[in-house]
Amino acid sequence: MLPRGRPRALGAAALLLLLLLGFLLFGGDLECARRARGGAGFFPCALAPRIPQDGRPRGAAALDRDPPTDPGGHNRSDCVLPRPLPPRCELLHVAIVCAGHHTSRDVVTLVKSLLFYRKNPLHLHLVADAVARNILETLFHTWMLPAVRVSFYDANELKPQVSWIPNKHYSGLYGLMKLVLPGALPPDLARVIVLDTDVTFASDIAELWALFAHFSGVILLWLDRLRLAGWEQMWKLTATQELLTLPATSLADQDIFNAVIKGHPALVQSLPCVWNVQLSDHTLAERCYLEAADIKAIHWNSPKKLRVKNKHAEFFRNLYLTFLEYDGNLLRRELFGCPSPRPPEAEQLQQTLAQLNEEDACFEFRQQQLTVHRVHITFLPHEPPPPRPHDVTLVAQLSMDRLQMLEALCRHWPGPMSLALYLTDAEAQQFLRFVEASEVLSARQNVAYHVVYREGPLYPINQIRNVALAQALTPYVFLSDIDFLPAYSLYDYLRASIEQLELGSRRKAALVVPAFETLHYQFSFPTSKAELLALLDAGSVYTFRYHEWPRGHAPTDYARWREAQAPYRVQWAVDYEPYVVVPRDCPRYDPRFVGFGWNKVAHIMELDAQEYEFLVLPEAFTIHLPHTPSLDISRFRSSTTYRDCLQALKDEFLQDLSRHYGAAALKYLTALQQPEAP
Amino acid sequence: MLPRGRPRALGAAALLLLLLLGFLLFGGDLECARRARGGAGFFPCALAPRIPQDGRPRGAAALDRDPPTDPGGHNRSDCVLPRPLPPRCELLHVAIVCAGHHTSRDVVTLVKSLLFYRKNPLHLHLVADAVARNILETLFHTWMLPAVRVSFYDANELKPQVSWIPNKHYSGLYGLMKLVLPGALPPDLARVIVLDTDVTFASDIAELWALFAHFSGVILLWLDRLRLAGWEQMWKLTATQELLTLPATSLADQDIFNAVIKGHPALVQSLPCVWNVQLSDHTLAERCYLEAADIKAIHWNSPKKLRVKNKHAEFFRNLYLTFLEYDGNLLRRELFGCPSPRPPEAEQLQQTLAQLNEEDACFEFRQQQLTVHRVHITFLPHEPPPPRPHDVTLVAQLSMDRLQMLEALCRHWPGPMSLALYLTDAEAQQFLRFVEASEVLSARQNVAYHVVYREGPLYPINQIRNVALAQALTPYVFLSDIDFLPAYSLYDYLRASIEQLELGSRRKAALVVPAFETLHYQFSFPTSKAELLALLDAGSVYTFRYHEWPRGHAPTDYARWREAQAPYRVQWAVDYEPYVVVPRDCPRYDPRFVGFGWNKVAHIMELDAQEYEFLVLPEAFTIHLPHTPSLDISRFRSSTTYRDCLQALKDEFLQDLSRHYGAAALKYLTALQQPEAP
Repeated sequence: MLPRGRPRALGAAALLLLLLLGFLLFGGDLECARRARGGAGFFPCALAPRIPQDGRPRGAAALDRDPPTDPGGHNRSDCVLPRPLPPRCELLHVAIVCAGHHTSRDVVTLVKSLLFYRKNPLHLHLVADAVARNILETLFHTWMLPAVRVSFYDANELKPQVSWIPNKHYSGLYGLMKLVLPGALPPDLARVIVLDTDVTFASDIAELWALFAHFSGVILLWLDRLRLAGWEQMWKLTATQELLTLPATSLADQDIFNAVIKGHPALVQSLPCVWNVQLSDHTLAERCYLEAADIKAIHWNSPKKLRVKNKHAEFFRNLYLTFLEYDGNLLRRELFGCPSPRPPEAEQLQQTLAQLNEEDACFEFRQQQLTVHRVHITFLPHEPPPPRPHDVTLVAQLSMDRLQMLEALCRHWPGPMSLALYLTDAEAQQFLRFVEASEVLSARQNVAYHVVYREGPLYPINQIRNVALAQALTPYVFLSDIDFLPAYSLYDYLRASIEQLELGSRRKAALVVPAFETLHYQFSFPTSKAELLALLDAGSVYTFRYHEWPRGHAPTDYARWREAQAPYRVQWAVDYEPYVVVPRDCPRYDPRFVGFGWNKVAHIMELDAQEYEFLVLPEAFTIHLPHTPSLDISRFRSSTTYRDCLQALKDEFLQDLSRHYGAAALKYLTALQQPEAP
Repeated sequence: MLPRGRPRALGAAALLLLLLLGFLLFGGDLECARRARGGAGFFPCALAPRIPQDGRPRGAAALDRDPPTDPGGHNRSDCVLPRPLPPRCELLHVAIVCAGHHTSRDVVTLVKSLLFYRKNPLHLHLVADAVARNILETLFHTWMLPAVRVSFYDANELKPQVSWIPNKHYSGLYGLMKLVLPGALPPDLARVIVLDTDVTFASDIAELWALFAHFSGVILLWLDRLRLAGWEQMWKLTATQELLTLPATSLADQDIFNAVIKGHPALVQSLPCVWNVQLSDHTLAERCYLEAADIKAIHWNSPKKLRVKNKHAEFFRNLYLTFLEYDGNLLRRELFGCPSPRPPEAEQLQQTLAQLNEEDACFEFRQQQLTVHRVHITFLPHEPPPPRPHDVTLVAQLSMDRLQMLEALCRHWPGPMSLALYLTDAEAQQFLRFVEASEVLSARQNVAYHVVYREGPLYPINQIRNVALAQALTPYVFLSDIDFLPAYSLYDYLRASIEQLELGSRRKAALVVPAFETLHYQFSFPTSKAELLALLDAGSVYTFRYHEWPRGHAPTDYARWREAQAPYRVQWAVDYEPYVVVPRDCPRYDPRFVGFGWNKVAHIMELDAQEYEFLVLPEAFTIHLPHTPSLDISRFRSSTTYRDCLQALKDEFLQDLSRHYGAAALKYLTALQQPEAP
């Protein structure tokens, strides 16, 4: 629930709020302000004043004890510096180093807090490993934030520059990369704020940026000096020297920063403590936040402290949770009085949305179809399956009310899975806790969970399915639904069948997995086809939707299946919607079908139009478990408009099918014109 | 989803951000600033400069077109006034007039935005009608906000002072009450900010309050003048005069304010426009927010504008949704550097929580039991049932995954219901939309929905039930569960039975409603006992939990019930948990039972300990519909710790029972020591 601490204890001292100007920090002019504030600041390990017996920093007495009171009531600010803001609409640059699944999630929360308060255009410079880049590229692409630009830098390329420093932790190497940022970022980038991923903002980052502007002369001056001194040589030399005397363990970025600064104290100026409020044991931090009414940023570097007791930890925790659970869609807002360019896709989308007719009875459907959902792929750590020519990934989508299915599904399907979850930001955190609490789920590394963030009133089922499908990494996919449990043997059996049938090379086929259902929540799952048939005969199991909608699966020909020893081919028919195994490059689901109805039917129709053979597998089966009907099915049943809109979508789909597949698609129109069609 | 507009068109002009000093506003010194800003301000109906052809306010050209630029980059602020903050820890006073269910919900969102940004202690002065007071008293009592004091003032008492003014709308009367606030609020209250309920803050209200402090001399001066002038006589005289000339329709508060100010322009000073950003058609508003980077407060008075098109409406909408859906629990945070007194209960609760042992395996259970959930009673409009001596309210609790049951439940039970919903703030809005979209639910006035806000990992089932039970307003309650549908006739039959059995007066009894279950989602509900018995014999219906846990209902004696013509008495037995009808003053559910298990069993045991007779009704029945198992039952099944903790809770409950009921309670201990007990 709460963020984990940095693996290294000395992380506690490092708020990486680096104010860089070509990697340069404030000069010594501000020294008095820092001391007066008793403040955490930038490099407190090296720079924080020592605390004498009375617990107060030396030389700070007068200012700390007796803050200058202003009869006009203006003594509120804890900041000696005036607080100008940067010129209106100035682009602010922020750099973040991130690697792996966990850190990618942290970055999202940090960025949300940044965006909530910001009023300026932002340029994010993300130094990322392959995992984080994959996740964050998708995320920002689908987030479509106005006035936010994102650039990626390959962390792997920077590794050689720091990998010579002995390092205990995987993440430590990424920490060290902050040392080489000045060289890695574009040479024309003059200033950047470097942030650790475990920071939460409580105010506008422009106020922090303003510390550049206000002292710009000073900073440029020091930059020149630093350039003369040569930062790169400086830190490398220091690191090498430190390594000579250290007991050969490892050196973290903070150690090196501290060591360099120790040797060159004039290089650094700490920030006012409100920009680096830490949950540490240091009296310094507490002094800071007790006296400051205005906390600017919180640094989550002391995990133990999150378990409250300390009443101020509550504030920190609540601010963090605010952004952890904040609906990121609400941050897709333009800036006032500044140009807020969106990505071109977003601009076009806005125009299409603007053309929709709000009086159209199906307006909600149209709007939902066009909605671009934020997507956070591989929300949890995941190991891609090794490349195997006949491997198959189970693909499904779900929302919170089906989380209970996950453990059982994992027991039934040992192979890779790509699952898309339709969640709010807050639900994504509940989901995280759910997985962490489950031994079965935590143990699995080959299940990829992709979060599709909720937006709009209708369930965008096919868009969610397409996310799961696009993220499947094996050559074949088993297109399932979350409320089905496959036969225990199905994963092995499918791979064997794919191999035997020479699927990819010889034929274009969709392997049909016959579907059944039980009405019992507690159910002894059949371990063989023979057991299944016995249950079927006993009336404990039915063919799927036998009572409500038999035509959806009738073409599978259950009677033939009973006796079948080999795969057999069946013909498409109206409303056929079997569960199939197909190559990963199969057609996508049609995203126009939102809410209930026709979402799978249309997909199977398109497979047929592309001349996939439907081959029923004689030993394969999957069983539907009971669940509460979805809200969408209730709406479908109760609303004429809903049914009319679905009809309109069907008609449009069929027209598109005809347009795309020509005369061959006529059979669908003809078939649907039969009187028994729904 | 979005807030409705005020019923009166001229509401569009009125941000009631009154800066009162004994109901006094700024003097004319600021006139230039107001004009320069072309600003909406306080009373724009009367005071906003007229717009000439070029769409720009007269006399505003120079300042508007050419804002003074600052080479240091400090030209960001749109505010000519410097922005000091009030003295640290100063108590800020806010007054809000609220009436009815809808406005009470609005107040919550307003207060959330206020609390999110505030850094000062607050005193809320709520002028409320009976409905709003009932709701908001419960809400603030359970919210337990540090450094927030709430006072209520009876709106009914103020009615006579304004009801002589002809008024079309119920809400109009409450609007007029703002005129009499100076007399209604405590005489020693010098300054107060008066807010309309459709305002959302985008910054710290202290900045608004600071406008008092900064001009305190001026304000005091004008206060004296105003006192001399006599505000009360002034507005009454004006209103009377206006009524003479108006076409006898009605007069809203804003009309009167405008008229008074027209006659006494020196009384008023408008606020900078950023404090009153309105979504109106006026160019003024747009000019304000295009030029201001810093929006301070948004006034939701133009409902049509919420349907976007205007790209800035998105910002307003998102800010509004942020607080609408914001987890109010996160606002239970102390202030930095200011004393943050909590209510005494909250203080004691903190101490009890602090004493819990985090290493205890059942820590989560202990913490959950102690959690005080925010409660918003009658979240939707509700008409209390007329007093009838044998009337009975159906009492149940649910969370989002059971919303689907509500329509069916309404069809089965025409009587009053008290339903508690366990929701997040965001889910509460989804619930609202769900009810609004349902004809069946919207039509019902005798169903009270009470929102209990989620907090903590375990489902506090009995705390939620107790909220529903406490809000039942009839002499009897039917204690049901949300996944049961009662016989269509049950409501009438229960009332008749209560009367016949002379329940309240003659005997202390719990009427047992026999429980059944079906496994089918689509199910033809039996319309009589005979039909039910036929379904039972056909195997379409079972006695409740026949397969999994028959002992929960065995004492009801279904065999006897088949034949029974009259109520019959049954004896309590271990694990008995029937659905019963009891007087409203029955024992509460024991809140220690959180999550799955023993929550009803313990309640029935306590009824037995209090010597309630269990009388089974021969024609009553209720049927459980299938649903996905809850996450809590899954945890119970999979976790030894969970089961052990439940056992510990049971033991403690039994000890308390013995302590409370003495030797009579020994039978429960004995009964539970039987080997077959779970």
